[in-house]
Amino acid sequence: MDDHVMIAHSLQHEFFGPAQQLHGATLAIHASFEREGLDEHGVVMDIGEASRLLGQVLEPLRFKNLDEHPDFAEKFSTTEVIVHYVALQLAELLPEGHGLKALTIEAEENPTARASVRLPLTP
Amino acid sequence: MDDHVMIAHSLQHEFFGPAQQLHGATLAIHASFEREGLDEHGVVMDIGEASRLLGQVLEPLRFKNLDEHPDFAEKFSTTEVIVHYVALQLAELLPEGHGLKALTIEAEENPTARASVRLPLTP
Amino acid sequence: MDDHVMIAHSLQHEFFGPAQQLHGATLAIHASFEREGLDEHGVVMDIGEASRLLGQVLEPLRFKNLDEHPDFAEKFSTTEVIVHYVALQLAELLPEGHGLKALTIEAEENPTARASVRLPLTP
Amino acid sequence: MDDHVMIAHSLQHEFFGPAQQLHGATLAIHASFEREGLDEHGVVMDIGEASRLLGQVLEPLRFKNLDEHPDFAEKFSTTEVIVHYVALQLAELLPEGHGLKALTIEAEENPTARASVRLPLTP
Amino acid sequence: MDDHVMIAHSLQHEFFGPAQQLHGATLAIHASFEREGLDEHGVVMDIGEASRLLGQVLEPLRFKNLDEHPDFAEKFSTTEVIVHYVALQLAELLPEGHGLKALTIEAEENPTARASVRLPLTP
Amino acid sequence: MDDHVMIAHSLQHEFFGPAQQLHGATLAIHASFEREGLDEHGVVMDIGEASRLLGQVLEPLRFKNLDEHPDFAEKFSTTEVIVHYVALQLAELLPEGHGLKALTIEAEENPTARASVRLPLTP
Repeated sequence: MDDHVMIAHSLQHEFFGPAQQLHGATLAIHASFEREGLDEHGVVMDIGEASRLLGQVLEPLRFKNLDEHPDFAEKFSTTEVIVHYVALQLAELLPEGHGLKALTIEAEENPTARASVRLPLTP
Repeated sequence: MDDHVMIAHSLQHEFFGPAQQLHGATLAIHASFEREGLDEHGVVMDIGEASRLLGQVLEPLRFKNLDEHPDFAEKFSTTEVIVHYVALQLAELLPEGHGLKALTIEAEENPTARASVRLPLTP
Repeated sequence: MDDHVMIAHSLQHEFFGPAQQLHGATLAIHASFEREGLDEHGVVMDIGEASRLLGQVLEPLRFKNLDEHPDFAEKFSTTEVIVHYVALQLAELLPEGHGLKALTIEAEENPTARASVRLPLTP
Repeated sequence: MDDHVMIAHSLQHEFFGPAQQLHGATLAIHASFEREGLDEHGVVMDIGEASRLLGQVLEPLRFKNLDEHPDFAEKFSTTEVIVHYVALQLAELLPEGHGLKALTIEAEENPTARASVRLPLTP
Repeated sequence: MDDHVMIAHSLQHEFFGPAQQLHGATLAIHASFEREGLDEHGVVMDIGEASRLLGQVLEPLRFKNLDEHPDFAEKFSTTEVIVHYVALQLAELLPEGHGLKALTIEAEENPTARASVRLPLTP
Repeated sequence: MDDHVMIAHSLQHEFFGPAQQLHGATLAIHASFEREGLDEHGVVMDIGEASRLLGQVLEPLRFKNLDEHPDFAEKFSTTEVIVHYVALQLAELLPEGHGLKALTIEAEENPTARASVRLPLTP
C-alpha cells in the first residue's frame, strides 16, 4: 500500500553538507506486511484497514516542517529515521490478534535514494 | 535527461489548503529536446552539454527554501510555475545555433502529480 | 492525476481471439490537463477538484462487469473506447470558465499495452 | 521474469465490500529465483526455460473467469491466493536437480496493491 | 507495445568521448500509434499485428554489433538514428489501408536517456 | 543508490543461443546497504560516499567490451556474474568500521530480466 508525505526539514550537522539548509522532500511511502500463511479471507491483511492505519500515522506529517515536530526534536529527520518512526507508530496501531509476522516501511526521497526498515512483529 | 531538486516552500493562499504551511517537495525533473531532423552527429543535442546546462539552472534551487528565493518572491512556487521557470532559464543558456525546435520540462512532485511545459524555440 | 478501475468484460468478435471470453482488467488511468498559461493561483487546474471529478466519472465503473453496463451496450469495451468515454464524461463535468485547452486520458491495461486520447476543449 | 494475466472474478464475502461484484484484474506477475552460488553457465537458471515454465502455469488463467476455474472453486481468488497457487504450480514443474533454493512470485493487481510469496525449495 | 534489443556498437567521432569505444546498450523500445477516431473493432490497431510487425523490424538487430550491420554502415548508430530507422522500417510494413495518422518510436538506452521520433503517416 | 554501465560482451557457449554473438547491454545498477540500527547521524551510510565507491567500482566497466576485460577472462560475463563481481569489489572498498551487515547489488539488463546478490558483511 502506497502513500506519500511532503515535508520540510533541515539536517543540522556538517555531515549533511548542503542538506543543512532548510529544504524539503516528497517521501513516497510503501508499506508491506508479512504473514505466515493467509487469514480466513485468503489475505495477509485487510488492505482498506492497512491503508487507513498508514494514513493515520502519516497525517501529522503531511505538509509539515519536521524541524518543528516534537517527535523529531532531538533527532536528525533522515529518511532512515522517518521510516523507523513510521514503522513503530504503525505497529502500535495494529489490532490485537493481527496475525502478522513483520511489516516493512520503505520511503523513496528522490529518484535515486530510498530507505527501508523491516520490523518483526509478535503475531 | 533527468535531475531533481529538494526544496521547501509554502503556498500562501487559502486555495492551497494545508499546503499553505511550510512544507517541501522533491521535484524529479525531466528535460527533453525536439529538433527537426538530427545534427551532424546523429543526435538531437549533446547530452552531456544538456545535462550540464540543466544542472546550472537547478543548482540555485537545490536544498533551498523557495519562500526566500528572489525569483519566486511575488509568485506562488507551484510545480507549474517552477517548470516554466526552469524552461525559460534553460532556453536562455542554450548556445547560439542550437538548432532546436522546442524544449519540454516536466516535474513530478509526488507519485500522483506532475506538471510540464513545452517551450517552442527559434532554432 | 492517477486513479484506477478493475473491471470485467468480454470482447465479442473473433477479431479479439481469447479476449472473447469473459475476463478482466485493471485500468490504471492517468488524466492530464493543458492550459495556455496558468491561472491566478499559478496552476493549470485545482488538482483536488480534478481528482474529485475523475473519481466521479470512474465511480460507476469500479468493480463492474462492463458487459452489463448500459453505456457500453452496443460497443466493444476496448481500452481505446474506455479512454474516449472517460474523456468525454470528464469534459462534461468541467465547470464553466475552466480555461483549459485540452485534456488527455491514458489507460494502461497491462504492462505492455496502453491507450490514450487527447480531447481539445473550448476554454 | 515478467508475465501477466487478465482475469475476471468475484470475492464472495462481505469482507470484500464492492469486490463481491463480478469484476476483473490485470495481474502483473514477477517471478524470481534464488540459488546458493551460480550454475556452470554463471546463471541462477536458464531464463528461457524459466519463462516457458511460468507461461505454462499462467496459460490456463489467461482471459479466464476464476469463478469458474476448478482450482479456485472453494477459495477466495485473492491476489495472495493466486501467487501461492502460481508458486506451487511452478515449483512442481521445475526439473530434477534444478539447484534452486527458493522462488518468489509477486503480483501487482493495481498500481497500489501487490502481494508476493517466497517458496523455499529443496535443491 | 514494448520490445527491446541488446546491441553492441561504437560511435566513431571524438564528439562521443568514451562512447567511441566498443560498448553496448539495451534499447527498450516503445511503439505507439495514432488514429483519427477508432476502427470498426474500437481499436487504433490490431495489437497482435503491431507487435508482430515491430518484432519483424527488430529481429535483425537482436544480439547484433551494429558496427557490422549494413544499414548503419555510414551513420552513427545513436539512439536517435536507431529510432528513426525503426520508425521508417515499421511504416513500410504497415498494411494498405491501415488508417493510421502517425507512429512514434521511443527508445530508452539507459535510465536517464531516451530518444523518440513521431512519423506522420498517410492513412 | 543507482548508477549504470553500458557494456559489450558475448557469451561463448551454446547454452546462450543468440547471445553467443557480440552484443551489448545497459546494466542499471542498484546498490543497497543494510545495518543493524543506524549510525550517529541517523543514516545507514553516507550516501555520497556510497555513491563515490560504487562509481569507483563501475568506472573500469563503463563503455567497455567485457570480452577484453581481464577480470572476466575465464568467466561468462552474465548479469549474475557481474553483480557478484560488483558486490565483492564494493565490499573491499568499504572503510574499516563501516558498521554494515550486508550489501545488495541488483542489475536490470533489460525490462524483463534482473539479477541480484546479497553479500553479508562483517561490521
